Amino acid sequence: MRVGVLTGGGDCPGLNAVIRAIVRRGVPEYGYSFLGFRDGWRGPLEALTKPLDIPAVRGLLPRGGTILGSSRTNPFAIDDGVTKIKKNLQNLGVDALIAIGGEDTLGVATKLHEMGVNVVGVPKTIDNDLSGTDYTFGFDTAVTIATEAIDRLHTTAESHHRTLIVEVMGRHAGWIALHSGMAGGANAILVPEVRFDIDKVCEWVESRFRLDYAPIIVVSEGAMPKDGEEVLLTGDKDAFGHVRLGGIGDWLGREIESRTGKEARTTVLGHVQRGGTPTARDRWLATRFGLHAIDAVAAGKWGQMTALRGTDIVTVPLQEATKQLKLVDPALYAEAEVFFG
Amino acid sequence: MRVGVLTGGGDCPGLNAVIRAIVRRGVPEYGYSFLGFRDGWRGPLEALTKPLDIPAVRGLLPRGGTILGSSRTNPFAIDDGVTKIKKNLQNLGVDALIAIGGEDTLGVATKLHEMGVNVVGVPKTIDNDLSGTDYTFGFDTAVTIATEAIDRLHTTAESHHRTLIVEVMGRHAGWIALHSGMAGGANAILVPEVRFDIDKVCEWVESRFRLDYAPIIVVSEGAMPKDGEEVLLTGDKDAFGHVRLGGIGDWLGREIESRTGKEARTTVLGHVQRGGTPTARDRWLATRFGLHAIDAVAAGKWGQMTALRGTDIVTVPLQEATKQLKLVDPALYAEAEVFFG
Amino acid sequence: MRVGVLTGGGDCPGLNAVIRAIVRRGVPEYGYSFLGFRDGWRGPLEALTKPLDIPAVRGLLPRGGTILGSSRTNPFAIDDGVTKIKKNLQNLGVDALIAIGGEDTLGVATKLHEMGVNVVGVPKTIDNDLSGTDYTFGFDTAVTIATEAIDRLHTTAESHHRTLIVEVMGRHAGWIALHSGMAGGANAILVPEVRFDIDKVCEWVESRFRLDYAPIIVVSEGAMPKDGEEVLLTGDKDAFGHVRLGGIGDWLGREIESRTGKEARTTVLGHVQRGGTPTARDRWLATRFGLHAIDAVAAGKWGQMTALRGTDIVTVPLQEATKQLKLVDPALYAEAEVFFG
Amino acid sequence: MRVGVLTGGGDCPGLNAVIRAIVRRGVPEYGYSFLGFRDGWRGPLEALTKPLDIPAVRGLLPRGGTILGSSRTNPFAIDDGVTKIKKNLQNLGVDALIAIGGEDTLGVATKLHEMGVNVVGVPKTIDNDLSGTDYTFGFDTAVTIATEAIDRLHTTAESHHRTLIVEVMGRHAGWIALHSGMAGGANAILVPEVRFDIDKVCEWVESRFRLDYAPIIVVSEGAMPKDGEEVLLTGDKDAFGHVRLGGIGDWLGREIESRTGKEARTTVLGHVQRGGTPTARDRWLATRFGLHAIDAVAAGKWGQMTALRGTDIVTVPLQEATKQLKLVDPALYAEAEVFFG
Repeated sequence: MRVGVLTGGGDCPGLNAVIRAIVRRGVPEYGYSFLGFRDGWRGPLEALTKPLDIPAVRGLLPRGGTILGSSRTNPFAIDDGVTKIKKNLQNLGVDALIAIGGEDTLGVATKLHEMGVNVVGVPKTIDNDLSGTDYTFGFDTAVTIATEAIDRLHTTAESHHRTLIVEVMGRHAGWIALHSGMAGGANAILVPEVRFDIDKVCEWVESRFRLDYAPIIVVSEGAMPKDGEEVLLTGDKDAFGHVRLGGIGDWLGREIESRTGKEARTTVLGHVQRGGTPTARDRWLATRFGLHAIDAVAAGKWGQMTALRGTDIVTVPLQEATKQLKLVDPALYAEAEVFFG
Repeated sequence: MRVGVLTGGGDCPGLNAVIRAIVRRGVPEYGYSFLGFRDGWRGPLEALTKPLDIPAVRGLLPRGGTILGSSRTNPFAIDDGVTKIKKNLQNLGVDALIAIGGEDTLGVATKLHEMGVNVVGVPKTIDNDLSGTDYTFGFDTAVTIATEAIDRLHTTAESHHRTLIVEVMGRHAGWIALHSGMAGGANAILVPEVRFDIDKVCEWVESRFRLDYAPIIVVSEGAMPKDGEEVLLTGDKDAFGHVRLGGIGDWLGREIESRTGKEARTTVLGHVQRGGTPTARDRWLATRFGLHAIDAVAAGKWGQMTALRGTDIVTVPLQEATKQLKLVDPALYAEAEVFFG
Repeated sequence: MRVGVLTGGGDCPGLNAVIRAIVRRGVPEYGYSFLGFRDGWRGPLEALTKPLDIPAVRGLLPRGGTILGSSRTNPFAIDDGVTKIKKNLQNLGVDALIAIGGEDTLGVATKLHEMGVNVVGVPKTIDNDLSGTDYTFGFDTAVTIATEAIDRLHTTAESHHRTLIVEVMGRHAGWIALHSGMAGGANAILVPEVRFDIDKVCEWVESRFRLDYAPIIVVSEGAMPKDGEEVLLTGDKDAFGHVRLGGIGDWLGREIESRTGKEARTTVLGHVQRGGTPTARDRWLATRFGLHAIDAVAAGKWGQMTALRGTDIVTVPLQEATKQLKLVDPALYAEAEVFFG
Repeated sequence: MRVGVLTGGGDCPGLNAVIRAIVRRGVPEYGYSFLGFRDGWRGPLEALTKPLDIPAVRGLLPRGGTILGSSRTNPFAIDDGVTKIKKNLQNLGVDALIAIGGEDTLGVATKLHEMGVNVVGVPKTIDNDLSGTDYTFGFDTAVTIATEAIDRLHTTAESHHRTLIVEVMGRHAGWIALHSGMAGGANAILVPEVRFDIDKVCEWVESRFRLDYAPIIVVSEGAMPKDGEEVLLTGDKDAFGHVRLGGIGDWLGREIESRTGKEARTTVLGHVQRGGTPTARDRWLATRFGLHAIDAVAAGKWGQMTALRGTDIVTVPLQEATKQLKLVDPALYAEAEVFFG
């Protein structure tokens, strides 16, 4: 059997570790050969391939990024996209596909599976917002980087009387903010799931100043004030219509300064959170996802994806991951609130 | 209500984070006051206390070690130990105890609970070998440190033709070796649960040399060769009768050198694995254990301990944690073996 | 003799290490007693003190921030400022002062020395822009943090076709950008000393894209385009009249996007560069500065400051440090240019 | 002109950064072509080569190890070694050699230069014991790793009453021990340059215990007790006649245990100190050495090597580096002693 592998969507530490594990197990255990597809769904769509064998995956475990490249190409948005993919797979002798990606990539995988393509999925999102799995790889790395930044801010916050703001990733879900804010001892954590009250935030800030400690606020890039989104959205989109990184963190800094009369400074971590070597835990998870993905191929579990449940890797239907975003649980957010102010 | 808190057994990053969370939640939410006991069970035994309130726990989250100190004192090995503890708790007005510790500390907690003391436990072990919980805090930190060491060895291993050995913690369970070896891409992982065959290890070493890569071996301090323990145990105990750190790693280096004729070098990480600031994940887990421990006190869940199950913190009977060691699952070890040689 | 110690200006990793070394040597070697002054020159001005002895400096070596606090108070801007300081020093029995700080703090020290106060200085600036010393402590830490961020961006840059920008500290001097950009392998380094040509920057960006690598640009917060400062300065000042952090990095991202038609993303490291534990090298330098500062006091070298020359710590006149900013040497910048584009 | 490049001796972070800088500057600036020689002097001796151009050096800056491989081959110990090298250089059209290495590699380079080969040297030693340069690259990385280990030991040392020992590299010179011990706040630093008195070491240990702090000792692998080397050398050599790593650290642990009656634990960092990515500072130094080495070739400075003097890179005669080992300056050691006990 020949198995194609592709990676789609945004960058995420651990992608290479998944690819390596698939190949390292698939070749000796099942006698499979492999073919890498380049740049996500563009690969099978345009027959862009890359050889994938054991020598090709040497040294990949600690490397960030993806040797296969990635894209946000959606074959369903392209004329005859699916027909082209099917034809290319047939021409290349590819019997099954392992698609490693997030909501969009796995959404395509789900539909292709329904149309008869043999697909197994591996969930991937830095934001940890995919349902069906306890965690996704890359998330622990992002949280670790954000926590290290918060740690560093603590000392400088204490020596001077200013508010320090860290803007982290998370457009729709606040997992990175929640975990790093709790691990870093933030005095407020603002997430997209809960509109924040800027008056309340300033109260927390002031209460910290009264204790002679300086406040640290972690904010998801997608967090929104209760009534302030008009302000936020003015001129803050980039050339591609995205809400600009840095938008909410900078806005928050200006608001807090003008309301408290004390300086505020913002750190925007940006893509630093997505890059570099994965943490030990993310490598462990990514490696196990790879091993179980190729086992799922061998077992013919088409339309399934690997998932973490406790300490076990299981498989669940692809739909389960893509039907709805996994948002921050209010009970967890309440745990974090213990430390606000 | 007045709640006593103590930490027992070996050092473990995250102990201070647990203490902080207990107090930060217990004071405002339940109106409790707290009393720290020093040096594990020696504290209640000898009425050695330390004030514990919100100012006392400021800044504790990232700090390794334990502000309460620790010991391996066992009140059941001391005349009238239990009577003394009960009397001291009464005299100090302490209504309930939170005991943070491993097998020994929680074993004492279990028996005290059966004798009518109001105890809640928090599991702690760097080695991850306590049953009843998916993971314990401190473990992720130890794995991270060991993985960073392995990462560094890879480049030097590749430039020169020598075997590099890393000895990690784990007297009875090989979890640290397994996770760090898998995350670090080791060519062999030797754990206490599986007696290793030195001939087989040398085969893996030689097969790496043939690929022009140098082999890296991770070994738990408690790993044992199939027939070689007599050799190992000669003169290797310290003044306290412990098997000396460094024993098996050094033995392995000498054996591999003399069998392969190529140099071997050993790194013994030792207590470096137990110290320093906890990883973001361990702080998250330790903080949540602390929050749920004080909730368990409020709910009168005596004889229970906090535990991680998937993404949830639950409580389980203390006996569950202490009745048997959680050893490495053979199925997991088989996953790691994919990458051996 | 009683020696006062103060720290002024912005935060800088290593301040506590200097304080510790002063006390650890001064007490046993010279039999001095010490008095800490709080919040820079505000301390002697308002007689705000803090006890400073050997127990007070235990554990300080790795801690960021300053236990003495800091401020930008200038006694020469206050009525009778100098008279008050002299009187307070006399009342408190302080015979000599060690002032640890940057241009402003040491500028005050210089003038006080000329007016008869016994002062020794220790140079401090994260930006490395003080003359008279090869390096200042804190600088290596800032460069290390910025380099780690650039390292992480490399992998994500390679997987996607976008420009990644890192804005680092440096209002007047580009040392942090130069060192981190060179250590991180940036494709362009923009510093305040050299007005940049946005067309040229876009050429470098395009040449990287043609190689199928993504460009990484490091920019000092004080860097300026050749003709574009009007754009830059519109609405970019904060409530305190400072040029806002994030200004130039965000501007650059928008310009490159609109000129190349490819996405750009900006990371603004901000105060993360100033906080946390110092690197080993900064601790070494800070400790040696502290030891030599108290030796300078013992030798009556008033009006001098410690300085690094090669591997030696020497003393130089305070004026030497404060008379002019140490800017990036054009020859060094030319070395970095080898790697542009 | 065609320039050969080789790396010799032990591994050292920064080797690849030197190679990259040589090529990145040499090709566009001087129009040179390059040839890599494999495995140190074995390369020119046996005409083992590797292509070396700009694509070959992409991505090398942060990578530990050396893409050229290394060895300890000495052509002067081989019949007609020099004749073979000269002939191979001629046959391969190599006009000049850049030799990157330590005492042995540069010793060979010195002699070859005297015999008419066009050689420029780049000094390399993890141990920082080469004369003629303020520092060598790789040293800062080793010190950083050792300091991180000491940092981690502090917390665990404080929670328990035991002595913690860290054995670091340095057979003949104690630079790594001195710098990391001072940066890490060790209570004793034992170096090869000064025979230590075990009674005195135990006094320092006891004085720490009396303060209720636990002692941390950093020891160079080559440190020796005043009268105890017979004990040390019994059975401690490996199959290759080297003094075994771990020897002195383990010996010290046993001695301190038996003399103080309190547990001691040893960490042996071993090759972890030599591997992995270089620090920002080492990348800066290695890159500048590479740039100046190719400039030295262009200037025909045969028989010279690059060297750091303050913030400048200069060239000095190769003999200067190899005539004698740079040992720890007693005045510097005296600075460190301020913090002993």
